[in-house]
Amino acid sequence: MTDPLPQIRIFDTTLRDGEQSPGASMTLREKLELAELLDAMNVDIIEAGFPAASPGDFEAVSEVARRSKRAVICGLARANEKDIDACGEAVRHAAQHRIHTFISTSPVHMKHKLKMGPNAVLEAVGRSVTHARNYTDDVEWSAEDATRTEFDFLCKCVDAAIAAGATTINLPDTVGYSHPAEYGALIRRVMETVTNSDKAVFSAHCHNDLGLAVANSLAAVSHGARQIECTINGLGERAGNAALEEIVMAMRVRSDTLPFQTDIDARQLSRASQMVSRVTGFPVQYNKAIVGKNAFAHESGIHQDGMLKHTETYEIMRPEDVGVAETSLVMGKHSGRHAFKDRLAFLGYELEGDALNDAFKRFKSLADAKKDVFDDDLIALVDEQLAAEGERFKLESLQIIAGTRGPQTADIVLAVDGVSSMAKAEGNGPVDALFKAIRAAMPHEAELDLFQVHTVTGGTDAQADVSIRLKGDGIMAVGRARDVDTLVATAQAYLHALNKLEARRKKKKLAA
Amino acid sequence: MTDPLPQIRIFDTTLRDGEQSPGASMTLREKLELAELLDAMNVDIIEAGFPAASPGDFEAVSEVARRSKRAVICGLARANEKDIDACGEAVRHAAQHRIHTFISTSPVHMKHKLKMGPNAVLEAVGRSVTHARNYTDDVEWSAEDATRTEFDFLCKCVDAAIAAGATTINLPDTVGYSHPAEYGALIRRVMETVTNSDKAVFSAHCHNDLGLAVANSLAAVSHGARQIECTINGLGERAGNAALEEIVMAMRVRSDTLPFQTDIDARQLSRASQMVSRVTGFPVQYNKAIVGKNAFAHESGIHQDGMLKHTETYEIMRPEDVGVAETSLVMGKHSGRHAFKDRLAFLGYELEGDALNDAFKRFKSLADAKKDVFDDDLIALVDEQLAAEGERFKLESLQIIAGTRGPQTADIVLAVDGVSSMAKAEGNGPVDALFKAIRAAMPHEAELDLFQVHTVTGGTDAQADVSIRLKGDGIMAVGRARDVDTLVATAQAYLHALNKLEARRKKKKLAA
Repeated sequence: MTDPLPQIRIFDTTLRDGEQSPGASMTLREKLELAELLDAMNVDIIEAGFPAASPGDFEAVSEVARRSKRAVICGLARANEKDIDACGEAVRHAAQHRIHTFISTSPVHMKHKLKMGPNAVLEAVGRSVTHARNYTDDVEWSAEDATRTEFDFLCKCVDAAIAAGATTINLPDTVGYSHPAEYGALIRRVMETVTNSDKAVFSAHCHNDLGLAVANSLAAVSHGARQIECTINGLGERAGNAALEEIVMAMRVRSDTLPFQTDIDARQLSRASQMVSRVTGFPVQYNKAIVGKNAFAHESGIHQDGMLKHTETYEIMRPEDVGVAETSLVMGKHSGRHAFKDRLAFLGYELEGDALNDAFKRFKSLADAKKDVFDDDLIALVDEQLAAEGERFKLESLQIIAGTRGPQTADIVLAVDGVSSMAKAEGNGPVDALFKAIRAAMPHEAELDLFQVHTVTGGTDAQADVSIRLKGDGIMAVGRARDVDTLVATAQAYLHALNKLEARRKKKKLAA
Repeated sequence: MTDPLPQIRIFDTTLRDGEQSPGASMTLREKLELAELLDAMNVDIIEAGFPAASPGDFEAVSEVARRSKRAVICGLARANEKDIDACGEAVRHAAQHRIHTFISTSPVHMKHKLKMGPNAVLEAVGRSVTHARNYTDDVEWSAEDATRTEFDFLCKCVDAAIAAGATTINLPDTVGYSHPAEYGALIRRVMETVTNSDKAVFSAHCHNDLGLAVANSLAAVSHGARQIECTINGLGERAGNAALEEIVMAMRVRSDTLPFQTDIDARQLSRASQMVSRVTGFPVQYNKAIVGKNAFAHESGIHQDGMLKHTETYEIMRPEDVGVAETSLVMGKHSGRHAFKDRLAFLGYELEGDALNDAFKRFKSLADAKKDVFDDDLIALVDEQLAAEGERFKLESLQIIAGTRGPQTADIVLAVDGVSSMAKAEGNGPVDALFKAIRAAMPHEAELDLFQVHTVTGGTDAQADVSIRLKGDGIMAVGRARDVDTLVATAQAYLHALNKLEARRKKKKLAA
């Protein structure tokens, strides 16, 4: 019998650090959907948000906590009582919950951001951890900008945090500045220097500004860390965080030289990646490791030849290990309601009553318009229906005339709070005409920040998947929609974004 | 006075290993354009292709060699005389040229791919390098799948290659399987074991299957390698190669602990990234290190606050260091021909005579349709014009009717070899109708593999940037076009792809 490998805790912060990416903000529904998947794939700790940041964040963390099954639910808090109280109130609904409190410890951050001296910072460490322990025994403390912190001072702060009851110590590379040999050595040296370091789990949190976040995280566990903080697709501010999928698969594939294990169900990695991309409108580059669409694709004659002779020649992982399967035909126009419901259940959607009836009707009309209906089409169809509930603005009808022969025009009828409003506009191109017509039918200030179209599945009758990002009053919102008519999808996505912007603006007013 | 830092040679293989990505193949014109930029940004060695692979590859390598200014031009060759002869003939047009020959040395590759025993492989190493030395003194030898090769055998092969005259020894991590501590140790151990290792420059070539290609490359130079093989945007098969921009900037930003230097002009990194993305139709993910659109963007309140107080608090590079500038307004409808020509020259396009007249006419009509004309718009305009030269299929006119109110129809007139052909079709959505109309006007077999739309600049009257990938007879071709009318751009991109497919099919027939 061999000893089990040391266990690495996977701390996912897609909902907190990931959502901080400009343009990546998510609705409550999207956050809950993602949290459910993260929980089901055995993420150990889910950082669900920053409860003191806004009432919306507070609500999201509380609701993720209420619905959690297996994962520890964590919230972020600065080193003050108000933040920690909000966090404690939000996470307490989870069976297992954690407060993650932090303060900057580097000279440049203390001086310019905090305007505090080292003694005041050190004192705040002990005080904040002690306060957090009133809510839970599971307290994590982070030294923001740890990699640029003076070593002796960093050790003093870590010692104070552990003495005050912190059970996890996180040493973030906040500016994405470190490289593996250096970051691994830092973790080891702090653990060796701080006398009570055996009372806490040490954690890595790396940013990817130099493309080294994953390598740094792996170096950290090789040097004693037992928790990694990461995000799906490496989502996060600037160049993002360490990618969860790469970390998990590197340890799995190279357990000979990275002898560690995680509980993650890797077969859900591909689905998680797609969900995060869909929700944020952020494309995954084709050559992204593990989850890119080319990650398992070969072209050159030399490699193809090698592949045919022996799969192992070039592949160290099988696509099915990370949940990539050939898109399979599942439904056609002759499929019945029962088969439809079963397939949705297989895809993770439990629909009943009116919601099921509506979805089935939409499926039938899609099956009429489109020869083959794939899993992706079903997911699109249900996602869109869920997103449309409770909207202020709806598309009633649209006609577009486009091409090279004359002015491009859009003729639109919207329902605004149930009342029809029509308008017609010319524009530079059909999309411009469409946006002008929407603005004429329903005047508003928001600006277009991103417009993106993809086809969902192959074939010329594929549904177009349109993402639109609108910006207004310092808020951004991403709307998505799918339709076989690109322009109808564009109109729907625009209205979706506008509805989300409206909802957020209300929330912001409430918070102010 | 301090000693200069050791120099690392940057070997760019975007045109060879990068172009092997499924769907990333480039036309001759695109290859020349990219090679020119790589040369201008001081890449030390440009691997321009695999001359024995096809007459097209041979032509591309020859032409890149002819036009090279500063860089060493390199071609790839298997360990046989025919490959090496083709390579020698293609690269010899460059003032400085290199032959890069390789053979697999790992047990799994020798057995399943080569079907050769170790002795035969060892013998082929000496023979191939000796043959390549007939053409040039600059010969690079690679041990394909080096990281899975039995160590003593690897050293024997390296020794044989150097004895036969190889001046660069490359140890690729072909399956993207290694991690930094391991890969660095391999490089050092081979260099220490092989007695004549001081007669060659050692080189790293890493794949990114586990997200570690950049970290592995940096570990290699820390352990004695003095050349790194990499690609713009990390383009390459599967999860791609090490990203040139990340490697260059990591050494620049962290020269304290990675004390090496390169000659790369980093201010051209952003432009190179955009060019590769445009040519291949592969999007760059927003959170891509160095060149992603969010690489320098912050959102969260905490970070913004820090930023305002002191830029250095969160940024370790400035956007302008890698050539990212605020998109600046350069042109409007009152701009004259002289200003237009000057701006194009600044952007790297030297247009004269008819080409300049055509471009100016197109610029004027764009300036009429669009309030502000940005650099990106000018690049799009000129790129499209260059791509359209010598095409078989052209769009004469198009009208589209779309929306929710009736059947979506496309009415198109194409010129096929100068003869007009018209057709009208209904479809599921305007794009489907358009594709059906094109197929009716000009019957063909190719299938749609990818359809993608982006806006080029902000504003609702932005030009749509459409990429279309068609697949037929085992060939793929990417077409691109931009227009304020998405559907016109879609038609143009489709025809562009069809023209490229046609050109390639002819070349393939020639080669067969």
